This record gives sequence, structure tokens and C-alpha cells, in this order.
Amino acid sequence: MNAASFMACHLKINPHIVRTPVLRSPALDDLTGAELYFKCENFQNMGAYKIRGAIHAIMQLSPKEKSKGVITHSSGNFAQALALAARKLGVRATIVMPSTASQYKKKAVKEYGGIIEECEPTNEAREAKAEDLRKASGATFIHPSNDLQVILGQGTACMELLEDQPDLHCIFVPVGGGGLLAGTAMAAHFFGKNCKVLGGEPYEADDAYRSFYSGTLQGNTSTNTIADGLKTMLGDLSFPIIQKYAAGIIRVTEPEIIAAMRLLWERLTITAEPSSAVALAALQSERKNYRGKRIGIIISGGNVDLDMLPF
Amino acid sequence: MNAASFMACHLKINPHIVRTPVLRSPALDDLTGAELYFKCENFQNMGAYKIRGAIHAIMQLSPKEKSKGVITHSSGNFAQALALAARKLGVRATIVMPSTASQYKKKAVKEYGGIIEECEPTNEAREAKAEDLRKASGATFIHPSNDLQVILGQGTACMELLEDQPDLHCIFVPVGGGGLLAGTAMAAHFFGKNCKVLGGEPYEADDAYRSFYSGTLQGNTSTNTIADGLKTMLGDLSFPIIQKYAAGIIRVTEPEIIAAMRLLWERLTITAEPSSAVALAALQSERKNYRGKRIGIIISGGNVDLDMLPF
Repeated sequence: MNAASFMACHLKINPHIVRTPVLRSPALDDLTGAELYFKCENFQNMGAYKIRGAIHAIMQLSPKEKSKGVITHSSGNFAQALALAARKLGVRATIVMPSTASQYKKKAVKEYGGIIEECEPTNEAREAKAEDLRKASGATFIHPSNDLQVILGQGTACMELLEDQPDLHCIFVPVGGGGLLAGTAMAAHFFGKNCKVLGGEPYEADDAYRSFYSGTLQGNTSTNTIADGLKTMLGDLSFPIIQKYAAGIIRVTEPEIIAAMRLLWERLTITAEPSSAVALAALQSERKNYRGKRIGIIISGGNVDLDMLPF
Repeated sequence: MNAASFMACHLKINPHIVRTPVLRSPALDDLTGAELYFKCENFQNMGAYKIRGAIHAIMQLSPKEKSKGVITHSSGNFAQALALAARKLGVRATIVMPSTASQYKKKAVKEYGGIIEECEPTNEAREAKAEDLRKASGATFIHPSNDLQVILGQGTACMELLEDQPDLHCIFVPVGGGGLLAGTAMAAHFFGKNCKVLGGEPYEADDAYRSFYSGTLQGNTSTNTIADGLKTMLGDLSFPIIQKYAAGIIRVTEPEIIAAMRLLWERLTITAEPSSAVALAALQSERKNYRGKRIGIIISGGNVDLDMLPF
């Protein structure tokens, strides 16, 4: 993958995505001592950056593959992303969701025309169910993050951010499955001017931190975090890209995540989801190292259940 | 006042304000059956459109007047707006606020460098206190809405919206003191293509509705509304402009306001304040008349106390 891969990807998905705005906040600049540029993917179609990768992955399929549909397992934004991307491209989408997924999320997937198949709330159960359904239907399985076409798509948010602000010193993104971090780190390598990319991760789901600094892919020992989009793990495709292109991973506590989320709601006046707040929380916790720098922060999404607010 | 007055105003205040984005929401389009364009003044400096008028009013003052400072009474966004505008222009600002105003709002005014003078929580008390202070200091009183320079400034949000979307059939704004409605209705007259401007108002503070349809300026009989920015009343300058240029005023109930606010938070993913939601609620309540139309909605601000949410 090179700069041309990203440019081709962006050209392809462009008619189906929103050019999201880059917002500033004098109050948050003051608070961090840096110049912050928020790339607000909460304003993306279906409310998160994930539509970028989902659209791109489906577009790679042959007409025959498209006719058999696509399938994924996700309890979060990728479920909605694949459902909406598939509808936009006239493809049938089946989403395996744990029976415990919130009504709010299931409703959103249904509204986008996705077919929900429920399973037991374990990783093994959802993988097994998706594999059974894939075999039976001939649908193409698209992984939410560990897929090179998905990773390219997710990197286009960073391309746009660097088009708007070419001189960023670094970019902070949340890391869960690693699709956004891998795509952003690669895109910043090709399109930035020595722009470093850092991942923010909850202590409570720190597989990426331990993998990155040990050099060996590791799993989560807990996933007890409010950042529900970040409970997933790096994969064998996203991890080497992150090892090669990312500058570091910073862990944050649950109170730090909630405090950052509140800052985004009150000061940036957007309903950023907890996972988005992890990127700002990571910068906040190490802000002494970033004084006076121009910093991009990718707000991953804004799909929040207002009945479940932490404040 | 004519098109040139607005253009001169916009040119003057432009270095001090944010060009706020115009956002779309497919979900809200579906829900209303119209094409909606949200001019998001929650992303404006200090979080509301009011900075536009405040900056413009202060800029009209002579150097001698500026040296004596400005004064206003407000428990809401104009308090913050005048404080910040004055700081940007190197002028001293005194804000008379009711003793019952929230700590959240007082804190914001102080952060912007405003000097707070507390008074009893009645209209008479705050007017009397402001007048006493004005006499003693020689400061210039600037009314939050009933001031032609303020009205011109507020109208610049509509100018920008029509620059971005010239073919709007109509624009909905909230109406409290009437500064935004008067400015928007005039600006749409000069810069729109037969673009009608409608005010949304709570039933619980419906002085503008009764004034508009009776032809006589009337006061509020209650102000028991969650839309705290709309408890104020039309004035002798804003009312005739509204009579001449606005197309109508639509009243909405408190549950309608809260439901619209929730839609803005969940679907547009911004923390719009309750007053902003009144404009969307007004459209919602009469949406059958606006099917298929291109409609601008000015989101007046995003200054919300997260400890006081209605949901």
C-alpha cells in the first residue's frame, strides 16, 4: 500500500461519504496548551468514520460476490456502517450481533436495512455464527478492522484532515481493533510532513499498548471500559502496520475518559462518543510534551445512547 | 438599513468570528420530509451567535466611549458574548446578572473577563442596577437584542447561510428578544431569493406570537420554559422589523422542545441548547406544510449545563 492506494480509495468512496468539518475550540487549546484541530467524524454518515472502510471493502467485490451479500460481526459502529454501506451499494448485509447489544444499536442497524442475526455474547460465538452464515449464504465476510481495504478506507479521514491542515505535528486517534490507527498512521506517513500518529487506549482494554511495546500481538485481559468501541483487539493485519507506522500508544483511565468526553460535549459542543474522548484524554494526560504543537484529533463518532450518560 | 449595511457589518466583524459550518442530517431530513441545512452557531466563539451583535455594537463606539467600557444586563448568552467581545476589542465590560443565575453561566462570564454585578432576579431590578452603574461609570449600555447594531450583527449568520445555500425556501430561528429573528428576516429579504423567515417560540413565553398577530407589542404572561434564552421580550426596535420582514411565528410546547433537542443531540450529534431546539420543534409541528422544501435552521447556541439535562 502506498500514497496512490489511498488516493484511489478516497476517489472511490468520495461520492458516498461526508467531507466532515475540522473544528477548533479556543477553550480546549487553552486547557491543553496546544493548537487542536478536531476532525469530526461524528458528522459522517451513520455517525462514525467506519462507513469509510465499509464502503471501500464492499466496492472491491466482484458483481458475483456482491450478489451474495456481505456479513460481519459487530456490536458497535461497524454493524451500522456495513448495513448503511451495503444499502448505498445495493448489497445485502447480515450483521451478527450479541443478544446483549443495546436496543439502540439494533434499531440503528435495522433502520439502515441490515439483517440482524443474534448470537451469544462471546467472541467465539459471534465468530462461529458469522462463519456458519457465511458458508450457508456464500456472503463475503468483512472484518470491522483487520482488513486491508477497511484500513485504507479508515485512513481517508486523516488524508482529509491533512488536506485542511497540512502542518500538523501529530494526530491522536482512539485504538480498539486498530483499523483507524493503522489507516491514520499510514496516511500520515504518506501525506503528512513528519506527522506522528499516536493511539489512545483505555487501561481497561490495553491489548494494543502491550502488543506495541512488547512486539508480540496480545489479547485483552479485561474490557471493562465505558469506551465500548475499543473493547476489540488488534489483528494480524492491523498490528504490523501499527508497529511500522504509529509513534506510540498512551493509556488512559476511565475517569480521564469521562472527563474528556465532558470537555468535548461542553466545549466543542458535540456529542462525541466515549471512544472518541479517549484520543483527547491521551493528549491531556501527556500534554506537557505537546505544548505549542499543532495537533489533529480524530473524533471517531457520535453514536451515544442518551439514556446511558456517565454524567 | 439595507444590503450594504449588512455587508459592511459582516466585513467589520469577520476577523473576530468563526465561519460556522452548515451541517446536514439524512435522518432529520427523513423525519421532517424536507431538506434541512443547520447553521451551527454552537460552534461560534463563546458558543452562540450573540457574539456577532456584541462585537458589532462595540465597534460602533468612539475611542472615548470605548475607554469608558460597556454594560449590559443578561442572565444568558449575551452576558458571555459582551464579555468576550469586549475583551477581543480591549474594552471593559460590566454584566448585571440576577443573583439566581447559574454558577455555570457566571463562571463563563468571568472566564471571558467580564465584571459581574449581581442584582435581584427581576426585570426591574436588573434594568435599574444597569442604569445606576451606567450613570456612575459613563459606560455605554448595549441591549442584548433591542439595538439596531446588534440586530445587524445577528443577521450575518443568515448572510453566511445564504452564501452557502442560496436557494433556501425558508429559514427557522428561535425568537426571544427578537434580535436574531429581526436580523435574519432582514438579511433573508436582502440576500435570499424570496426566502421566508419564521420564528419558533415556546407557548410558555409567547410574547412575540401575540405581538406579531395582534399588531401590538405585548409582554410575556409566563416564562416557565426550558428554553432559558427565550424568556425575554421583543422591544420597540426589534418588533417593527419583525412585523415588516418575518413571515410568521409558530409556538411549540415544552415536550416538543425537549423532543427536538434530543433529536439534535442524537441525530445531528451537537449539544444544541434548548432555545435552538425551538426552531426545529416549530418546523416539526408544521412539517406537512414544508414537505420537499429546502429549509435553513439556525442553531443559536450550545451552552448547556450537563448537570441540568431534561433527558
